[in-house]
Amino acid sequence: MDGANAIFLIRCMDRKGLVAGITNFFYERGLNIVNCQQYTDMMSGQYFMRLKLDLAGLACSRSELERNLSNFGEPMKLEWSVFYSDYMPRMAVLVSKASHCLYDLLVKQREGTLRCEIPLIVSNHPDLEYVAQQFRIPYFCVPVRGESKAETEPKIMELLKAHHVDLVVLARYMQVVSPEFIALYNNRMINIHHAFLPAFQGANPYLRAFQRGVKMIGATAHYVTEDLDEGPIIEQDVVRVTHEYGPEDLSRIGRDVEMMVLSRAVKAHLESRIIVHENRTVVFTGGAGA
Amino acid sequence: MDGANAIFLIRCMDRKGLVAGITNFFYERGLNIVNCQQYTDMMSGQYFMRLKLDLAGLACSRSELERNLSNFGEPMKLEWSVFYSDYMPRMAVLVSKASHCLYDLLVKQREGTLRCEIPLIVSNHPDLEYVAQQFRIPYFCVPVRGESKAETEPKIMELLKAHHVDLVVLARYMQVVSPEFIALYNNRMINIHHAFLPAFQGANPYLRAFQRGVKMIGATAHYVTEDLDEGPIIEQDVVRVTHEYGPEDLSRIGRDVEMMVLSRAVKAHLESRIIVHENRTVVFTGGAGA
Amino acid sequence: MDGANAIFLIRCMDRKGLVAGITNFFYERGLNIVNCQQYTDMMSGQYFMRLKLDLAGLACSRSELERNLSNFGEPMKLEWSVFYSDYMPRMAVLVSKASHCLYDLLVKQREGTLRCEIPLIVSNHPDLEYVAQQFRIPYFCVPVRGESKAETEPKIMELLKAHHVDLVVLARYMQVVSPEFIALYNNRMINIHHAFLPAFQGANPYLRAFQRGVKMIGATAHYVTEDLDEGPIIEQDVVRVTHEYGPEDLSRIGRDVEMMVLSRAVKAHLESRIIVHENRTVVFTGGAGA
Amino acid sequence: MDGANAIFLIRCMDRKGLVAGITNFFYERGLNIVNCQQYTDMMSGQYFMRLKLDLAGLACSRSELERNLSNFGEPMKLEWSVFYSDYMPRMAVLVSKASHCLYDLLVKQREGTLRCEIPLIVSNHPDLEYVAQQFRIPYFCVPVRGESKAETEPKIMELLKAHHVDLVVLARYMQVVSPEFIALYNNRMINIHHAFLPAFQGANPYLRAFQRGVKMIGATAHYVTEDLDEGPIIEQDVVRVTHEYGPEDLSRIGRDVEMMVLSRAVKAHLESRIIVHENRTVVFTGGAGA
Repeated sequence: MDGANAIFLIRCMDRKGLVAGITNFFYERGLNIVNCQQYTDMMSGQYFMRLKLDLAGLACSRSELERNLSNFGEPMKLEWSVFYSDYMPRMAVLVSKASHCLYDLLVKQREGTLRCEIPLIVSNHPDLEYVAQQFRIPYFCVPVRGESKAETEPKIMELLKAHHVDLVVLARYMQVVSPEFIALYNNRMINIHHAFLPAFQGANPYLRAFQRGVKMIGATAHYVTEDLDEGPIIEQDVVRVTHEYGPEDLSRIGRDVEMMVLSRAVKAHLESRIIVHENRTVVFTGGAGA
Repeated sequence: MDGANAIFLIRCMDRKGLVAGITNFFYERGLNIVNCQQYTDMMSGQYFMRLKLDLAGLACSRSELERNLSNFGEPMKLEWSVFYSDYMPRMAVLVSKASHCLYDLLVKQREGTLRCEIPLIVSNHPDLEYVAQQFRIPYFCVPVRGESKAETEPKIMELLKAHHVDLVVLARYMQVVSPEFIALYNNRMINIHHAFLPAFQGANPYLRAFQRGVKMIGATAHYVTEDLDEGPIIEQDVVRVTHEYGPEDLSRIGRDVEMMVLSRAVKAHLESRIIVHENRTVVFTGGAGA
Repeated sequence: MDGANAIFLIRCMDRKGLVAGITNFFYERGLNIVNCQQYTDMMSGQYFMRLKLDLAGLACSRSELERNLSNFGEPMKLEWSVFYSDYMPRMAVLVSKASHCLYDLLVKQREGTLRCEIPLIVSNHPDLEYVAQQFRIPYFCVPVRGESKAETEPKIMELLKAHHVDLVVLARYMQVVSPEFIALYNNRMINIHHAFLPAFQGANPYLRAFQRGVKMIGATAHYVTEDLDEGPIIEQDVVRVTHEYGPEDLSRIGRDVEMMVLSRAVKAHLESRIIVHENRTVVFTGGAGA
Repeated sequence: MDGANAIFLIRCMDRKGLVAGITNFFYERGLNIVNCQQYTDMMSGQYFMRLKLDLAGLACSRSELERNLSNFGEPMKLEWSVFYSDYMPRMAVLVSKASHCLYDLLVKQREGTLRCEIPLIVSNHPDLEYVAQQFRIPYFCVPVRGESKAETEPKIMELLKAHHVDLVVLARYMQVVSPEFIALYNNRMINIHHAFLPAFQGANPYLRAFQRGVKMIGATAHYVTEDLDEGPIIEQDVVRVTHEYGPEDLSRIGRDVEMMVLSRAVKAHLESRIIVHENRTVVFTGGAGA
């Protein structure tokens, strides 16, 4: 007996009888399906499924269930991952000097919107230590300067490892991250870019948005990959602007969009709603119970 | 053998094994699931499902399949309806004097966005006959005037019946519809209200929106029920306005929202994506293949 | 000589030569117009103007300027108010138990987006004292309970007076405010209502939004008047929702809209961009320099 | 005496006394200001003004007024243009095969939203002749094929000249336009690009949007310049999409955004609300009376 839920994220090539087969697999093991969402990409023939299961009826151990699923899925090359609701994910936030995204994440974590622990905040600047202190979260300042740069990242990776971090959020962290670091947190490192990608990749997007005279500005949350600003997009949004606003105004107006977009993306990740496929994301929606 | 698809809309109380049971039912009959969407309303315990099936493998007749499903579903009081892709739905459009929604429906039908036939347009005014002529669709003008009013609706109902209409769209048809008429087209009559319901129910919503000084105006597409403007909402949208706009401007700006909202709702209905439950709608989303 | 700016908000009946007359009035006194915005309400014939003036060239005292303007405006019954940029407005925040709007206001004040001082936070509950402590702002808990209710408001009004408050923000303060209190802060008390007014006035808007099955939820910031939720609307926004979300989800999703809408309204007020006219607001837009 | 209005669009370097000076200029000539909007670009120091004047009090001829304004503006290098409300602008629509933007423009012109005449429609394909016939507008098919390509554009330019066209709208006209053609209609040729520029410039934006996995798609209306898709942006908008939609779905969903964005841009141009400055647009907003 077990009071928790399990969420399975499943991917394989679509084939006849797949839904019936998978749902039967779990049903036969006494697991009731709380929520089931699926999607077939017509172009690639890939099938994606998110299953939320009530573990109350589970007759075997979790590891046995997982072993059985592996065996069951082998002939159809089914890929899957599982998340148990009684595990509390651990999220690190990396910041530079801007406080708005950090605050929004901390407040949403505290009020329960983001279900996770935040064991540490890391920054290349001391500026936001007061925010960390307000929320009593350990703050590590690891400056990125000249020759010391090569030593910076290993320190950060060590910190994250020591704190058993599951998810790394770059909340306006204005540093390029190395391939080694990214590889460690593949599809577990989320960045917020302050533009509507693929428009204005790279530096100074608000200044360039002003110069181009766009009538809307946006923000994009994506998983970090080796290609800067080209990782799988999780969430985007925009806000209308006019000729009245200069680059500083755009930067200020954009902050609200950045924090909304980032926290929605982080929430979707923490609730195991995202499957990455060929640089695109399948994002299953749903309320608190789903 | 059959080259078409079937879409089943299903509703019943949620229970253990439901997904597995239903998907198995179809799998055992040789039907591959092209798309499967579901939703459980946690508050009422109701389960909703939309299944798109490839009929190519169907070994029995359609009526046998339906009979079997009824038998299968009886113990769990499963309610269902089915739509076959080789049937072309027939949609009547009722209008008064405003042309924008009518044009949008006609153009979208012609370009294939709305998959249906439009056998007739009915109006209480002669004004829009030229639009019907442009698209070579029969136009019936049934004036609503004084004592003749009691005779109007029966005439319209007769027309719709004679043309075997499946869906009635009130595209800015400015008349109240009788309970008898509504009952004939229960959950098959869609109205566009030119306000963000439940704000500004009833007459002159744009004038009242102006007087109230709202900063956004909207439109609402809903199934028509006996309670005016209180039927199940299918789709809504809004657009930002400012103090610069008077009632006439709001009315003009609102036209674009009205036609977008109405055509999205009609499209969802024509693609069998909507289940009505206790004055609320479950609207399953999806692309052309789903 | 004076390094500051002045913003004049002006209203009168429109008449020939008004723009030329007013701009000349200031030009003749050595004041350069940094920004000039105007609007004429065609229905009422009312003329509205917002003028931002560089005080550097002011040859007389401010009070003399104001006296002269009164004399100048008397024949045309010109109403006006003025705000000097070297005065820092003082804003009180009233809260109950929800922290999101409060946090957003505090963070935006600290980062300079909202130019004001926040001398105190008042609540009918002790719950949010920790937020006040994080930002080192005095927190006054004035419980509203049974017979003591009559004594509560006078206490709050006294507190606001003692702290020389210019603007009162009800940031999800779940109490009805008396006419006496409102009169003291006429057009200087802003409330956030958690619905797209005039839809869902009154209590429990998210539950009612769920029951009505709306496809978007919204929030409305307005000046508080005696008629509950009927004051002049300053700002509104909405967010799309689906059948998947229960009342709790709507409440959570709505929080982001509430805080965005409230902080935009407060910012517009603090920058003297709003003129109220017959329960409607003229809101002049613009960037940091305007 | 004259019952019409004049709209002056004015640009010059900002300087002390400018508003007072200009408004006085018109006031002294007996012209009442119906609407006055202005904007100063803080970065470049450029001043922009849109003045709507009631010509009823004009004591001299229009050409005298214009001469006087030129003299008045010479010392400050004031640039200006004027549009008289009793002139009906003439708009040509260039199309290829897609009908949605064309229909929207034709319907909005007929219902009075777009105040202009449409003397001709030009296309490189015969496909949309039926639309032109529905609205009884001359349709010229000028195919673009192989060696004949060099002859195509001169034919089109001739047609536009013969029809005294003021504004050229490329309503999904899928051809590159030559510098000579563009120069003839500088800031008078509007294109709709089916992406949120500067994202997805060039061909096949919907396919590339799908491949990039964006969560919103958009459209951009801009004046045509020699640099393809890089002209001054007039209007943009977006719509939310999900992983469920393939390239064909995006293309269909995008059509609604394209036609909204294009018709708003065309309306702003026809109402003389746009000033172009260094590849950016100042777009003054306003209702029917402004």
